Amino acid sequence: MVRKPWQKSPPDHRTRPKRSLPPRGRGRPAPLSPDGPAILYGWHTVKAALENPVRRFHRLLATENAARRLADDGVPLPVQPELVRPGVIDARLGPDAVHQGLLAEADPLQAPTAEELAPEGIVLVLDQITDPHNVGAIMRSAAAFTAKAVVTTARHSPEATGVLAKAASGALELVPLVTVQNLARGMEDLRRRGFLLVGLDSSGNTDLAAVALRAPLALVLGAEGKGLRQLTRATCDVVARIELPGEIKSLNVSNAAALSLYVASRKLAQH
Amino acid sequence: MVRKPWQKSPPDHRTRPKRSLPPRGRGRPAPLSPDGPAILYGWHTVKAALENPVRRFHRLLATENAARRLADDGVPLPVQPELVRPGVIDARLGPDAVHQGLLAEADPLQAPTAEELAPEGIVLVLDQITDPHNVGAIMRSAAAFTAKAVVTTARHSPEATGVLAKAASGALELVPLVTVQNLARGMEDLRRRGFLLVGLDSSGNTDLAAVALRAPLALVLGAEGKGLRQLTRATCDVVARIELPGEIKSLNVSNAAALSLYVASRKLAQH
Repeated sequence: MVRKPWQKSPPDHRTRPKRSLPPRGRGRPAPLSPDGPAILYGWHTVKAALENPVRRFHRLLATENAARRLADDGVPLPVQPELVRPGVIDARLGPDAVHQGLLAEADPLQAPTAEELAPEGIVLVLDQITDPHNVGAIMRSAAAFTAKAVVTTARHSPEATGVLAKAASGALELVPLVTVQNLARGMEDLRRRGFLLVGLDSSGNTDLAAVALRAPLALVLGAEGKGLRQLTRATCDVVARIELPGEIKSLNVSNAAALSLYVASRKLAQH
Repeated sequence: MVRKPWQKSPPDHRTRPKRSLPPRGRGRPAPLSPDGPAILYGWHTVKAALENPVRRFHRLLATENAARRLADDGVPLPVQPELVRPGVIDARLGPDAVHQGLLAEADPLQAPTAEELAPEGIVLVLDQITDPHNVGAIMRSAAAFTAKAVVTTARHSPEATGVLAKAASGALELVPLVTVQNLARGMEDLRRRGFLLVGLDSSGNTDLAAVALRAPLALVLGAEGKGLRQLTRATCDVVARIELPGEIKSLNVSNAAALSLYVASRKLAQH
């Protein structure tokens, strides 16, 4: 029962003025979403999606309070909100989802391919990180540190929807989530195009802060527990660690990603 | 049906040699656990608890593989493991818990009170952070950066069990989780005993990296979404932000904690 607004809604439902093409990196609308629509909920996530001119919405459910807040904040509404009680959204998402009165169904964004990534700045490469909270928090940090993309494998990675989108807190609209079939080959492509490949691992033999970093830079992170797979590790130019003085020598992967981005951005800014 | 090994198990079930008192900060055994036992699962979490001489165990469920791995690693066994199939642990924890074949029931650790905290190093103060994944990841980073304690409110904070303990990855055994009834009063106590109180907030008017930090230092973090409550904020000596160049100006709270710890430990080490 998904209503596709660009097919069925009258034009006056699209209250946002036409805009020019979005800046590079904000993704293009996917013509079809074979895996079903992306489910977006929570204030920051839905607001950022509504403000992204290339997102195509199927539905927007909003409580009266949330709809008023969207209006007060001047958030564009490319689809007419359906006013609902909070319980209707609770019932869709389960009791643990902090949805703040907003739930949207939209097409997933179409990301550039790895070959289309410009050889500049920092990208993150995720080696089979499966936890959507972690991948979402990593997307959020990537946006906070102006990373150019997050690269994952098509398999063994969570979809850009639901919990991941919520944890990303709007970052899905800002940083492309690029998928590759084979991570080692994708990394080789990046290297060929000038990227320095730096793996992060608690057993790395150099402190990241001491590595001679330069852009374009790919920071490669492994899954919780397993770390970098052997081939991923072997494909890196350097494997570095974050220097930790305490007894625990490895961090939650999204914390490691945030620290790596912090260290690397500061080092690149010094050049 | 909880079997308390120090009441009912024969002495040969306690295979660990007696040790001297644990070093400061590792907690003391709580004589009673009015809220029920702490549930500990996952390799790092259970291994660290077994290696903590003050943890009192009620039960240890282990798969054959996990029991062998414990033996191979020479992990002390203060309670006889009950060998079970993985499904038994799955049934206790639900399908999403990555338990790696280990589940322990133990008494919660008794932490020092805020008044007992030595005025040294860095402590983290959490203002009603309710998500156990986040608090656990913060504990883990606290242990990695040798923070002396994590201070939370008795209410509006998750218990040191289950998901929190798993995300802490053994840090519960290393960093005391101190609870106070009233956060602002607890912070005043810390200040009176010499702590500099630095709040972290994306709207802070100074970059944390530019603040004159000194030990003993309390880094104060607010909840996702809400941030620092007004009184918490007013009680801080300084409210600082982590400088973020991108469009997203706030990080997941555990990522913000890790970055604050990184920045502050490096600054303190320079003195």
